[in-house]
Amino acid sequence: MLNEKMYALGNKRSVIREIFEYAKKRGGEIGKENVFDFSIGNPSVPAPEEVNQTIKKLVDETPSVELHGYTSAQGDKRVRDTIAANLCKRFGAKISGDDLYMTCGAAASLTITFHALKEDGDEFITFAPYFTEYKVFVEGAGASLKALDSDRNLQPDFAALEKAITPKTKGVLINSPNNPSGVVYGVKTIQTLAEILKKKSEEYGKPIFLIADEPYRELVYDKETVVPFLMNYYKNSIVCYSYSKSLSTPGERIGYIAVNPEADNAKGVYAAVCGAGRALGYVCAPALFQRVAAACDGLTADLSVYKRNRDLLYRGLTACGFECVYPDGAFYLFMKAAGNDAYAFCERAKKYELLLVPADDFGCKGYVRIAYCVQTQTIERALPLFEKLAKEYGL
Amino acid sequence: MLNEKMYALGNKRSVIREIFEYAKKRGGEIGKENVFDFSIGNPSVPAPEEVNQTIKKLVDETPSVELHGYTSAQGDKRVRDTIAANLCKRFGAKISGDDLYMTCGAAASLTITFHALKEDGDEFITFAPYFTEYKVFVEGAGASLKALDSDRNLQPDFAALEKAITPKTKGVLINSPNNPSGVVYGVKTIQTLAEILKKKSEEYGKPIFLIADEPYRELVYDKETVVPFLMNYYKNSIVCYSYSKSLSTPGERIGYIAVNPEADNAKGVYAAVCGAGRALGYVCAPALFQRVAAACDGLTADLSVYKRNRDLLYRGLTACGFECVYPDGAFYLFMKAAGNDAYAFCERAKKYELLLVPADDFGCKGYVRIAYCVQTQTIERALPLFEKLAKEYGL
Repeated sequence: MLNEKMYALGNKRSVIREIFEYAKKRGGEIGKENVFDFSIGNPSVPAPEEVNQTIKKLVDETPSVELHGYTSAQGDKRVRDTIAANLCKRFGAKISGDDLYMTCGAAASLTITFHALKEDGDEFITFAPYFTEYKVFVEGAGASLKALDSDRNLQPDFAALEKAITPKTKGVLINSPNNPSGVVYGVKTIQTLAEILKKKSEEYGKPIFLIADEPYRELVYDKETVVPFLMNYYKNSIVCYSYSKSLSTPGERIGYIAVNPEADNAKGVYAAVCGAGRALGYVCAPALFQRVAAACDGLTADLSVYKRNRDLLYRGLTACGFECVYPDGAFYLFMKAAGNDAYAFCERAKKYELLLVPADDFGCKGYVRIAYCVQTQTIERALPLFEKLAKEYGL
Repeated sequence: MLNEKMYALGNKRSVIREIFEYAKKRGGEIGKENVFDFSIGNPSVPAPEEVNQTIKKLVDETPSVELHGYTSAQGDKRVRDTIAANLCKRFGAKISGDDLYMTCGAAASLTITFHALKEDGDEFITFAPYFTEYKVFVEGAGASLKALDSDRNLQPDFAALEKAITPKTKGVLINSPNNPSGVVYGVKTIQTLAEILKKKSEEYGKPIFLIADEPYRELVYDKETVVPFLMNYYKNSIVCYSYSKSLSTPGERIGYIAVNPEADNAKGVYAAVCGAGRALGYVCAPALFQRVAAACDGLTADLSVYKRNRDLLYRGLTACGFECVYPDGAFYLFMKAAGNDAYAFCERAKKYELLLVPADDFGCKGYVRIAYCVQTQTIERALPLFEKLAKEYGL
């Protein structure tokens, strides 16, 4: 009597949610401050002041019917023009507001994009480790997801990619800075990806899209770390952005899809995006927050906390003998599970009230994800416990 | 290289949008005040003051990370509990916050519900005239929509319904107060619908759902007009609500799905709703506006303007000799097109700068929809033009 797939999706909590709920329960038992919850990627830093200032200004100065009324389906024209102008300025992009489609955040950007592109039998390729919901979104659009292993540094395995692309490949999905690894793809990586996709597109006589999921674009911590802007390297590219992490507003659901105007049949792709948004019930992105996004585009919450957390955690854990991937961005640290069984390792960590996420669901066995979007104090107090855990494993 | 269905949906403007764009263009040529645009159902009345007051209070008093952070996927628990308590109080409903799922507005409520329920080969039934997007939403979920004619008073044709229900019928979708007709279904109508669905459910040994699309619930203008609360009459019922029209906040995308806890496998239906929301990319409804909705639930914008507009328009048009359906609610008036060809009639009306929507796309030939969510002055100035139009037709 129901859609069994939807039932299964709604009935099964994600591993992350399970741990998050456990943390709440355990906090009730022994005190919140004694539970070290590294499970959830919920920004711990307030939104930049401009967010709330803009909200109040808009409420005070804009007529209600205009402020809270429908915008056009693709988003308010001035909002799109402002954001496009910023992208041109920041990245030398050559796009206009007519190439942007405002969305209810990154998940909406992705589902709309997959629905817009998908033809019968299509598949999308991504690299492990990858955000678990990609599979849900791609399969929800009626396509299939093929996840390839990355190389030792968690960069794409180019040879594997060349082999994996078939005439059914509609696109390759990348996520840099990466959830769950924190790894960033540099210019050379993007150039090589672009070369492969160009070659394969020509070989099969059809475009293979490069799709970027970029909620962590601004969350990088070293001067030399650059997140290349996709459109400057590959014409058939689509950027899915969200303000959730940059502005610390994940609950407000605001982001955009940028379709490269140089893509093959770019106007057609954009129309299909509009159609998919319509079919999925996205009438328009939230009107007030469209304007907040335009006013605050390019700003970030105070990232120094995340940088401090990263440095402290990376130094502390490697000093304990743990093998960690150095995270250039996002707010996740990817660590080898001592003993190689991530589930067993997380269970043992739990004894010390350290709540980590086994990365098997991210397509990468034997690792754990540690979300360091927490209070710095939490990390300071957790490190001695990690040390005890390391000793248990003889590190 | 694209999803052709999505391309078609995105590329083809709706008739309403076409007229709306024409209105803007024409306004530029002869002055906005000389164009009488009755095409769009965009609330013309400001949101109640409490909306903006609540926004400012929340921004001032709630920590940023809490206010703008993720809520649970089904919506903030306190928000759901508050709204459920109001529904119990207002309608004698017996539901709790755990039966509510907060959404990004009515379109999201509907797409999520159709995706949650849909099995292979399913169909949904509705009554013409009906909101054109229903077809898009139902077909987007992979089901088909069967539209039945209504009776002369635009109430359901019960005999037709009995005949139309088959083992493939997953649900019946109603919309009262109705867009585009303004008609309200009374208690007796709902009771009869419930009886038929109960009988047919038993006959086929499976629940047939009654789904209500209720963005216009509060927009009724006479004391004796009551919009019955579905759950009090039929157990397998799902209410899809939106605050767009009641609070005049259509751009903010906030509403909910209420699953009757007495439905067969109610917990399963709710889980499927959660799963469908997840698969479609709805991570959570906008966080700030979830709280605004809870604080303002039950309030309405100043409806006296709509009532005045309705009375003025209905009296004026019938005095001209036009045949109109008396609208008990919503902000639409449904009128017979003189000459019976709605397109031709709308073209002649255009000569007087009167912009009406032919109702053929609503599944009802020979009628036009007149959206009276406009300034009262617009109606006052339009009536003499309608009179001229009537005379052209010899009325």
